[in-house]
Amino acid sequence: MRAFGDAPREKCGVFGIYGHPESAVFTYLGLYALQHRGQESAGICSRLADGSMRFHRDMGTVAEIFPERELRRLKGDAAVGHVRYSTTGASRLLNAQPIYVEFAKGHLAVAHNGNLVNADQIRKRLEGEGSIFTSTTDSEVMVHLMARSPEKAPEDFIGDALRQTHGSYSLVALTPDCMVAVRDPRGIRPMCLGSRMWTDDDGREHKAWIVSSESCAFGVIDADYEREIEPGEMVVIDDAGLRSVFPFPPHREAFCVFEYVYFARPDSIIRGKMVYDVRKELGRRLAGQLADRGVRGDVVISVPDSSNPAALGLAQASGVPYELGLIRSHYIGRTFIEPKQQIRDFGAKLKYNPVGSTLEGREVVCVDDSIVRGTTARKIVKMIKHAGAAKVHLAVSCPPWRYPCYYGIDVSNYTELIANEVQSDLERIRGYIGCDTLTYLSLDNLLEATGLHRQSFCHACFDGSYRVPPVDFVAEARKQLDFTGLPDFSSIEDDDDGDYGGYTDGGS
Amino acid sequence: MRAFGDAPREKCGVFGIYGHPESAVFTYLGLYALQHRGQESAGICSRLADGSMRFHRDMGTVAEIFPERELRRLKGDAAVGHVRYSTTGASRLLNAQPIYVEFAKGHLAVAHNGNLVNADQIRKRLEGEGSIFTSTTDSEVMVHLMARSPEKAPEDFIGDALRQTHGSYSLVALTPDCMVAVRDPRGIRPMCLGSRMWTDDDGREHKAWIVSSESCAFGVIDADYEREIEPGEMVVIDDAGLRSVFPFPPHREAFCVFEYVYFARPDSIIRGKMVYDVRKELGRRLAGQLADRGVRGDVVISVPDSSNPAALGLAQASGVPYELGLIRSHYIGRTFIEPKQQIRDFGAKLKYNPVGSTLEGREVVCVDDSIVRGTTARKIVKMIKHAGAAKVHLAVSCPPWRYPCYYGIDVSNYTELIANEVQSDLERIRGYIGCDTLTYLSLDNLLEATGLHRQSFCHACFDGSYRVPPVDFVAEARKQLDFTGLPDFSSIEDDDDGDYGGYTDGGS
Amino acid sequence: MRAFGDAPREKCGVFGIYGHPESAVFTYLGLYALQHRGQESAGICSRLADGSMRFHRDMGTVAEIFPERELRRLKGDAAVGHVRYSTTGASRLLNAQPIYVEFAKGHLAVAHNGNLVNADQIRKRLEGEGSIFTSTTDSEVMVHLMARSPEKAPEDFIGDALRQTHGSYSLVALTPDCMVAVRDPRGIRPMCLGSRMWTDDDGREHKAWIVSSESCAFGVIDADYEREIEPGEMVVIDDAGLRSVFPFPPHREAFCVFEYVYFARPDSIIRGKMVYDVRKELGRRLAGQLADRGVRGDVVISVPDSSNPAALGLAQASGVPYELGLIRSHYIGRTFIEPKQQIRDFGAKLKYNPVGSTLEGREVVCVDDSIVRGTTARKIVKMIKHAGAAKVHLAVSCPPWRYPCYYGIDVSNYTELIANEVQSDLERIRGYIGCDTLTYLSLDNLLEATGLHRQSFCHACFDGSYRVPPVDFVAEARKQLDFTGLPDFSSIEDDDDGDYGGYTDGGS
Amino acid sequence: MRAFGDAPREKCGVFGIYGHPESAVFTYLGLYALQHRGQESAGICSRLADGSMRFHRDMGTVAEIFPERELRRLKGDAAVGHVRYSTTGASRLLNAQPIYVEFAKGHLAVAHNGNLVNADQIRKRLEGEGSIFTSTTDSEVMVHLMARSPEKAPEDFIGDALRQTHGSYSLVALTPDCMVAVRDPRGIRPMCLGSRMWTDDDGREHKAWIVSSESCAFGVIDADYEREIEPGEMVVIDDAGLRSVFPFPPHREAFCVFEYVYFARPDSIIRGKMVYDVRKELGRRLAGQLADRGVRGDVVISVPDSSNPAALGLAQASGVPYELGLIRSHYIGRTFIEPKQQIRDFGAKLKYNPVGSTLEGREVVCVDDSIVRGTTARKIVKMIKHAGAAKVHLAVSCPPWRYPCYYGIDVSNYTELIANEVQSDLERIRGYIGCDTLTYLSLDNLLEATGLHRQSFCHACFDGSYRVPPVDFVAEARKQLDFTGLPDFSSIEDDDDGDYGGYTDGGS
Repeated sequence: MRAFGDAPREKCGVFGIYGHPESAVFTYLGLYALQHRGQESAGICSRLADGSMRFHRDMGTVAEIFPERELRRLKGDAAVGHVRYSTTGASRLLNAQPIYVEFAKGHLAVAHNGNLVNADQIRKRLEGEGSIFTSTTDSEVMVHLMARSPEKAPEDFIGDALRQTHGSYSLVALTPDCMVAVRDPRGIRPMCLGSRMWTDDDGREHKAWIVSSESCAFGVIDADYEREIEPGEMVVIDDAGLRSVFPFPPHREAFCVFEYVYFARPDSIIRGKMVYDVRKELGRRLAGQLADRGVRGDVVISVPDSSNPAALGLAQASGVPYELGLIRSHYIGRTFIEPKQQIRDFGAKLKYNPVGSTLEGREVVCVDDSIVRGTTARKIVKMIKHAGAAKVHLAVSCPPWRYPCYYGIDVSNYTELIANEVQSDLERIRGYIGCDTLTYLSLDNLLEATGLHRQSFCHACFDGSYRVPPVDFVAEARKQLDFTGLPDFSSIEDDDDGDYGGYTDGGS
Repeated sequence: MRAFGDAPREKCGVFGIYGHPESAVFTYLGLYALQHRGQESAGICSRLADGSMRFHRDMGTVAEIFPERELRRLKGDAAVGHVRYSTTGASRLLNAQPIYVEFAKGHLAVAHNGNLVNADQIRKRLEGEGSIFTSTTDSEVMVHLMARSPEKAPEDFIGDALRQTHGSYSLVALTPDCMVAVRDPRGIRPMCLGSRMWTDDDGREHKAWIVSSESCAFGVIDADYEREIEPGEMVVIDDAGLRSVFPFPPHREAFCVFEYVYFARPDSIIRGKMVYDVRKELGRRLAGQLADRGVRGDVVISVPDSSNPAALGLAQASGVPYELGLIRSHYIGRTFIEPKQQIRDFGAKLKYNPVGSTLEGREVVCVDDSIVRGTTARKIVKMIKHAGAAKVHLAVSCPPWRYPCYYGIDVSNYTELIANEVQSDLERIRGYIGCDTLTYLSLDNLLEATGLHRQSFCHACFDGSYRVPPVDFVAEARKQLDFTGLPDFSSIEDDDDGDYGGYTDGGS
Repeated sequence: MRAFGDAPREKCGVFGIYGHPESAVFTYLGLYALQHRGQESAGICSRLADGSMRFHRDMGTVAEIFPERELRRLKGDAAVGHVRYSTTGASRLLNAQPIYVEFAKGHLAVAHNGNLVNADQIRKRLEGEGSIFTSTTDSEVMVHLMARSPEKAPEDFIGDALRQTHGSYSLVALTPDCMVAVRDPRGIRPMCLGSRMWTDDDGREHKAWIVSSESCAFGVIDADYEREIEPGEMVVIDDAGLRSVFPFPPHREAFCVFEYVYFARPDSIIRGKMVYDVRKELGRRLAGQLADRGVRGDVVISVPDSSNPAALGLAQASGVPYELGLIRSHYIGRTFIEPKQQIRDFGAKLKYNPVGSTLEGREVVCVDDSIVRGTTARKIVKMIKHAGAAKVHLAVSCPPWRYPCYYGIDVSNYTELIANEVQSDLERIRGYIGCDTLTYLSLDNLLEATGLHRQSFCHACFDGSYRVPPVDFVAEARKQLDFTGLPDFSSIEDDDDGDYGGYTDGGS
Repeated sequence: MRAFGDAPREKCGVFGIYGHPESAVFTYLGLYALQHRGQESAGICSRLADGSMRFHRDMGTVAEIFPERELRRLKGDAAVGHVRYSTTGASRLLNAQPIYVEFAKGHLAVAHNGNLVNADQIRKRLEGEGSIFTSTTDSEVMVHLMARSPEKAPEDFIGDALRQTHGSYSLVALTPDCMVAVRDPRGIRPMCLGSRMWTDDDGREHKAWIVSSESCAFGVIDADYEREIEPGEMVVIDDAGLRSVFPFPPHREAFCVFEYVYFARPDSIIRGKMVYDVRKELGRRLAGQLADRGVRGDVVISVPDSSNPAALGLAQASGVPYELGLIRSHYIGRTFIEPKQQIRDFGAKLKYNPVGSTLEGREVVCVDDSIVRGTTARKIVKMIKHAGAAKVHLAVSCPPWRYPCYYGIDVSNYTELIANEVQSDLERIRGYIGCDTLTYLSLDNLLEATGLHRQSFCHACFDGSYRVPPVDFVAEARKQLDFTGLPDFSSIEDDDDGDYGGYTDGGS
């Protein structure tokens, strides 16, 4: 983490496979299934029989940057891969992962999802000791710590390095001898374990081990889901098989609840729960809140596709029919040219088209999974009203997002949040967005909907209860911000299409 | 139409705008909204103030092939555009549209959606008179006829040319003086009229006229829907405004019912009906058929996204809950590399991932909008069963597809159709696909669901009632095929991923 | 030829091979050797065993546009290819060759080098009869004539078509049955015949026939030079072998003398003469002219590479030492970005760098093969003087270029020629260019240097003695031009880098 | 330098400019002029007014990888650039320069030409201390040393770092505050200083300082040549101007004599000598050696273009006429597809075409500047003989290349050298190459031809007199090689086109 508040925070996906002759192709397919976790860059590093490594990484989606020729070059029976969301700019290629380095202990490839809260301090210390950096990623800080560890065995130097960090990580490392997958002791970001049997030319059966940010990557490669990697667990996989160690002191679990709300794919299993089921339950509980407020509506629609399950749950619980009110385009490119003759709500229109007959004359309950800056929500509400809706009741399947995230979500600045802690007046937010009613799911409902112990989650984005020390930098952040001077959200420019960013691309 | 049965048949989208200083940019956005009608190539031709024309066309999607620099080069206040689905191959660039030619009457750009049944005969006659052809499209045949017409005015030579053809066309032509939009006298393919007001620098208001295959292209550019272009109507738009002529003898309308079933976007209005509403009604009537058969199920899912409305309608009518059972990937590229270690149902898995908790242990009613060769349906059914479904009831929102289409759909060969007229045993088809029950919507239900007069449709693909002469070439086609030797569908290779082709990319 | 004076005139190269299993690869290598005749676009069309054809053409050099995958797709045992120089612009892809068409007699690919003087008249007539055109090339006019010929056999319809044209052509046509190479009856553009023996898998020997614009294409593919294709000769090559017919009435030969001066590669044999030897003789005769004027100099340099042989000949004949005075860059791209802070003679400097020690304090005889607009010559002279030369004697190895060419060279406008017929004052030209003396080779010396009969050449560019009727359009051209208003060459902008264009890229 | 003998050794070019508002564009043009020193990758890093830096580097030539958009992004008034020759492979992008890093002292860009002989030892030590490496370049080792230096000022930490290294370097570093150019104390690789005056919008004059591997980069940007950077000199340029320090103990100069033979462009001035003049003198002295051996010949030709000056000198001294015997293609791409039907000397033919009339029946003296593996020389001799030469006398303008180079030339392995120290029998080499006589310039003649003190050169490649300690790794290298098992050069495969590599692309 470089300077507070200005640096991009990435959400990412990681994948690794050990013990399969087509590791790179499987990694490529696995990353394809994890593409919703990052579309800006991707990379694969494979390990050859002689222990040497080959890698390729570039800006773009997995399908774009791995032509067959490139993929076939990545030989070997183990591989790790990474997809990444980042800000644009060609030089950002330097931040693409996996990181590959050579050092005293040989060479090493690392794919990392997460964010460290003490990366800056460590980086400054390392620079003071003469280290050089080629990227702005926390991941490079981790690798420096690994290189400087006196330990020789991968599990030891990786553990040694990670014990010096605070924050979130689901990390897969590949060395000439083994693959190591490790999750931070609070288990903030997800990672799970799978396997795939295969038969060699002599008819012998082998088991390849697979780790992935989400279980949805197992289906596409016919792999079997085994289990979660536990918080604080390090899994070491080599030719002798898999073993598990716990190199960290125990911490209370703090899984990012937002993975259930938005990030993860609905067909993934996380902590024993199918994400789809959790999201439907969020919708059901939203229905209860709406009923309590006396809001009913004639029709329930969703902002596709990530809000579909919650909208369906809401419709089922309320008995109000679920309809398709917005059609999402499949063909959207990275950039679009806008006429000089301005088009109303241009950015939203490229993604969504209203279905007039669903909306016209109706009281519409529109379900969105979250609101960040609110500009896109505002456009969508206008579009629905322009299509003839009598009323729009916006129902959000999570609480107001009030606090920045320092553990891997790309929202680190109060000013990006329409509902930040000093903008607590929801009525003003409703006015800005232009809906007739605005209902956020309560935090209690969100946590209870998961069916898991509420103490096991991180939900600092909703209530500021940061769990990972040092918390003081949060305080400092708040000091840096001139709260009295926070931009009034009514002045947020309407034509800002950047709101949902790469954000609504994810999910389902 | 070149050789019977071997040539690609394209489905396409056309767009035209007259009287706007940013015609090319609007055409680009309009084509973007029509992208579901063809993703293989696209093109725009614009007319400059001096009557000269500029154009660009290439293989790829609209977002890919029109960088801003290229688009800004296409100056002028009128433009026509085209998106096209075709077989692959670089040389197919020759078939991309709009066609642009120079001839005695000046120059001319033509964008065409449809298919002529007598193109071969005309082409042979023209070749006999010394014409040369550079593409294999019917559209080039039309342009030759225009060039050879003794008439001088665009509306006259276009009418003269089209009167010599039989088949389907929704066509937009751009000349130095005017834009001409014309629909075949049966109105087989859709086309509608829109407009957009704009204000010049002097504050004067102007009206730009727009024609489009579907009304969904109007929303994205803030244009107003005016009306259908009528079957047999020719609309001539020039600086004096718009006028309408009917250059053909009257015919009974024969609108392609498959546009309602699958092709059109659900947010389009066609013949006064929102496509979404028609599709929901298809689902409702399917529900009735299922009930009649005693099939109910525990859950209704759709093959996303094109089957969503029908599934929703079915669920609402039957009271069986609608759920997301298959998650569709947004990131699929043109080609994917498959491991040598075969993956079950690879092609289907890249597009769809099952949601286990929705399917496990359930009787699943799965709604698909149509079945062509059946190979993808077979994979999807296997995937759903593999995810734990107790039973799969496949419900198809149209009748069995028994006959080739000669009017613009890319299925011209009996052997591509699992339910073709000699494969009438639906039980065998069910066995091949592997579902527990298989229910096709009846033709009566399909036609009645539209709420329009059943005589006004072409539904030859379902019952062979071809409406456009000469029908004798159909008979000839059937003779050419050795029906007794038709491949038994049980032998269709499972690993053929080409089934749905670019097909399931369309729709919603 | 479209409108007089404004249309691009192409110089091109053609290649064809018949009877070899790797025809496309050989054509590719042959075109590579002919690349100096056109670098803007290239194409290959091959004929498969079943008579069908495949082709690929694109903007760029041969090495750029034929990746192996593309080339291997062009199967078959016969192929024709083309390289072309044209103005830029993506839409110019339409003008790329070979032209491929389908017509009543089957299909046909044509590669053409040359220019017709009555193309406009024919095109107007054909358009009047209903023909449509997709390019602006004369070649498309030829193909229309072939298509309209009542003759059925390729040699007949090609002969029939060409008898209606006037102008220059070296043309190779490929049909399902044969390859036809034909040269216009005056033999204006070059073409020669080669062969290559090859052995099939059964050990049988076969002879493949090859035609090429220049013999330099034979070396790179180990083919043997057989002979010139004669003026007016049509060579028909099919599975039965090669036969020769002369379908035109006899004309006096009029070979373009400029091929010897500049176009052809020095290692080509044309009309029995090695081009290198002719160019050296041009230099020797220039030496005589210089001596007659009393000009000697201390050192002879050339504008590399195309002027090297003449400079060498001049040096040998005069006894003045030949040195490298200008180093030519090998890495020049299509475009270069210039700083806003202007750089002296930027365009020339990117191509040439002076060798100070060769030039400093010397009287330099600088040999250039031709001067078109004079702007580059002016820059080069300034560069040489800036490098310290005491004097610059510019010696040009051809006469002043006074008249446009209508037979295949891209200079069709008087205003592009600094020495055009109304700018006959060579002293003013010398003053503009800034050299101390300016010596053009005399026409007599040029023609005598070839060792061939002077009556057998076209040298209209030097003396206006156009040989191909109708000459009247030349008169018309001169009328169109306002001679009194011709731009004074002293006003030609210095910073125009377009002078030598793709021009000095050719030559050796 | 990684493992001895297996790693690629790069030759490179560096460029830097300080104090000009268009620094990146000037660097781009300078790199274009230095392109002969490396065509595989290139990069530019610019420094903005706020001290931040931007950079772009990629695989390809300067013209290919810097579109205007990219170049305009590189704002700022100082920039450094680099061109590099390396082995292929996308991952080699990691080795592209300038290197850019962030460290405790801020950030830093480094462009380096040269090679360290103790890089491996240093790298091992640094790795032992926890450093990580992302490339295989010596340059990254240097940057690590700079980062670890206790010194704070750029001139101090750069000097501190370089004093720990042994080897060759011409290095340009850019920091937020200054540009530092430094040459190793022996001055093995070249670097010189230039300047350019410019006037700001207020009419004030400013002086921009420029450093470049060769002076040929000054001409293209209208800069003035100032002087050599001296061996061991460090030039520090900041807003206060230029100052010079000498941070190393004095060493005897050891300039790479091969720069005069082949590497440098003939229009460069190195150590006060125009390279062109030195090369001509090499040819003159070769003429003397030929005369001593009684070899005369009928004609002198060169292997273009790098051997042209020596051939010209030889011709002038011997009185035998200089002719163009081989025409070099300008259009050669990176790869070429070869037919399965093998073509004699395919690789050589793509580059060179013989001029029959120059060669036929003649005794040809062919001048080549150097011979590495000999396979291309063998092909060229065969090609000349096949064109009819009676005899071929091969004259090489340097001595036999017997020893690897460890100071920046990409020949580090004995087995790549046909004339290595255990293959001292020149008659066997002559037999392999197939020429009638083979004459190498003597080392005495080479050194004397420069007109500079012979003690001031490194010529270890010719006589093994390595000047830079530790020499012991040379001994070790020789031990590693099994000399008795060195491949007999008669077995070198004929179809190896890799000999001259990117090698003959350089020079003139």
